[in-house]
Amino acid sequence: MRVLVTGASGFVGRQTIGALARAGVEVHAHAQHAEKVDGAVVAYGGDLRAPGAAGALINRVRPDTVLHLAWNVEHGAFWTSRDNLDWTAATLLLARAALDAGVQRFVGVGTCFEYRWPDDGTCNEGTTEIAPATLYAVAKDAARRVLQELGDISFAWARLFYLYGPFEHEARLVASLAAKLARGEAAPLSRGLAVRDFLDTRDAGAALAALVLSETTGAVNIASGEGVSVASIAERLGAIAGRSDLIRVGALPDRPDEPPRIVADVRRLRDEVRFRPSRTLDEGLAETYAWWRAEVGGRP
Amino acid sequence: MRVLVTGASGFVGRQTIGALARAGVEVHAHAQHAEKVDGAVVAYGGDLRAPGAAGALINRVRPDTVLHLAWNVEHGAFWTSRDNLDWTAATLLLARAALDAGVQRFVGVGTCFEYRWPDDGTCNEGTTEIAPATLYAVAKDAARRVLQELGDISFAWARLFYLYGPFEHEARLVASLAAKLARGEAAPLSRGLAVRDFLDTRDAGAALAALVLSETTGAVNIASGEGVSVASIAERLGAIAGRSDLIRVGALPDRPDEPPRIVADVRRLRDEVRFRPSRTLDEGLAETYAWWRAEVGGRP
Repeated sequence: MRVLVTGASGFVGRQTIGALARAGVEVHAHAQHAEKVDGAVVAYGGDLRAPGAAGALINRVRPDTVLHLAWNVEHGAFWTSRDNLDWTAATLLLARAALDAGVQRFVGVGTCFEYRWPDDGTCNEGTTEIAPATLYAVAKDAARRVLQELGDISFAWARLFYLYGPFEHEARLVASLAAKLARGEAAPLSRGLAVRDFLDTRDAGAALAALVLSETTGAVNIASGEGVSVASIAERLGAIAGRSDLIRVGALPDRPDEPPRIVADVRRLRDEVRFRPSRTLDEGLAETYAWWRAEVGGRP
Repeated sequence: MRVLVTGASGFVGRQTIGALARAGVEVHAHAQHAEKVDGAVVAYGGDLRAPGAAGALINRVRPDTVLHLAWNVEHGAFWTSRDNLDWTAATLLLARAALDAGVQRFVGVGTCFEYRWPDDGTCNEGTTEIAPATLYAVAKDAARRVLQELGDISFAWARLFYLYGPFEHEARLVASLAAKLARGEAAPLSRGLAVRDFLDTRDAGAALAALVLSETTGAVNIASGEGVSVASIAERLGAIAGRSDLIRVGALPDRPDEPPRIVADVRRLRDEVRFRPSRTLDEGLAETYAWWRAEVGGRP
């Protein structure tokens, strides 16, 4: 089986192509810079938003299945970037080319930010209200709405929640804390009351690979199903690093209007896709901290 | 003021560019076949879905405002056509290019099929549930969701209801009845209980022109606001033609699952855009019948 993976050099993509390759899939990987792709059978480069690029890629690879991860995820900017228009268009044109080429299955990737988060309870794919509030999330949701309406192709939509792991952008929570701890710097944060659903990217990659290889259709949350407070994440990392003294919970003001709880219902992932994470949160954080320690230690 | 109109040779577009030109606008019109455009200052041809076409058009015209009417409306096929993917993509890429070129206002065109129709009452832009049920309507709605989230540009979304007038596809209701009457053929139909909101395309074009020139943002119904049964439309046309004997109400079975009532709330169009139709339904039908009589009479 031949699977085309776009966004293959990204934070999640790099873990996904490994999981697919281990499952015996012939992975054809696309990333803007093909030389950054590691572990695929074939790698292609170029800007998928360029005129004609999506169709040309499909016709070159002729995959059985497409996993489309590529999108603008430039830290901070992606929420409101005009590039969301181009990525929505590229996604629809990739799907059109896939349909025309007889591709059997198309898996797109969305976000927990498509949901209106309940103050308690979990986000369920079938019952939780869809209410995206940023251009990024609206664009993702719009792509999903169109693709879901297609016949002639098996379509699934992976909604990613909070992820952490190697290669994370250092401005994001876990990477920021782990890097500071590895450097022996103080890590001030708010009271950290917000509860989030964190999953290691290696498990997220494996979950995406399982979804690609399953027959499950429609939206599927890719998450742990467990809520953990930001303060608890920080304290766990402090303990793992043996530097709990550097974790300064409550040193920064709480962010206003932050949703109190973003946690996934993972019954579809567990019972239909039949995926379970292979590591606990503490194991994942410990591996991630070790990666950051090597990363920081390797710097001059 | 320079307005770019796409889909300018279509059923609605051809009436809209005339209305804009009469308002003193410099109309730059795009249609797949430029030679079919009548009444614009400048006409451009080509397939707007072709790679790079949308951006190239914006950069060539450098409009102040865009009215984007172009879409696949091939009779019968458009509900489920894969071309809906390409048109959604082309719409988003046109908007992206418009944003980058500093275009002030972008008016897109949707459909009453975006609504879940109430069994009584009218479809209101702000309160009626959005529940598109075909790929066509889902794609239109998806484009609207993304464009509505943009800052930096004034955005309005025209929801067209039922239209009739010259150049209508002969398989559609009014055209079919008028053409049969003009030929002296019997016009069998169902009991015709379904109530619809019919507007003459010349008024629809004038309404779109008024919307383009207004500062109204968000969704605006383009319709008459009056419900009329299909049977009444047929009987009115029969009377206009002096051939009521040819109208056979009840000769065909009713369609199952047909929504009983699709009527627009036109308060936004009337009170904010300040548009009112210039002709009554009977006047519009009489003009349309006259057009069909000339059309049919002109054939060998």
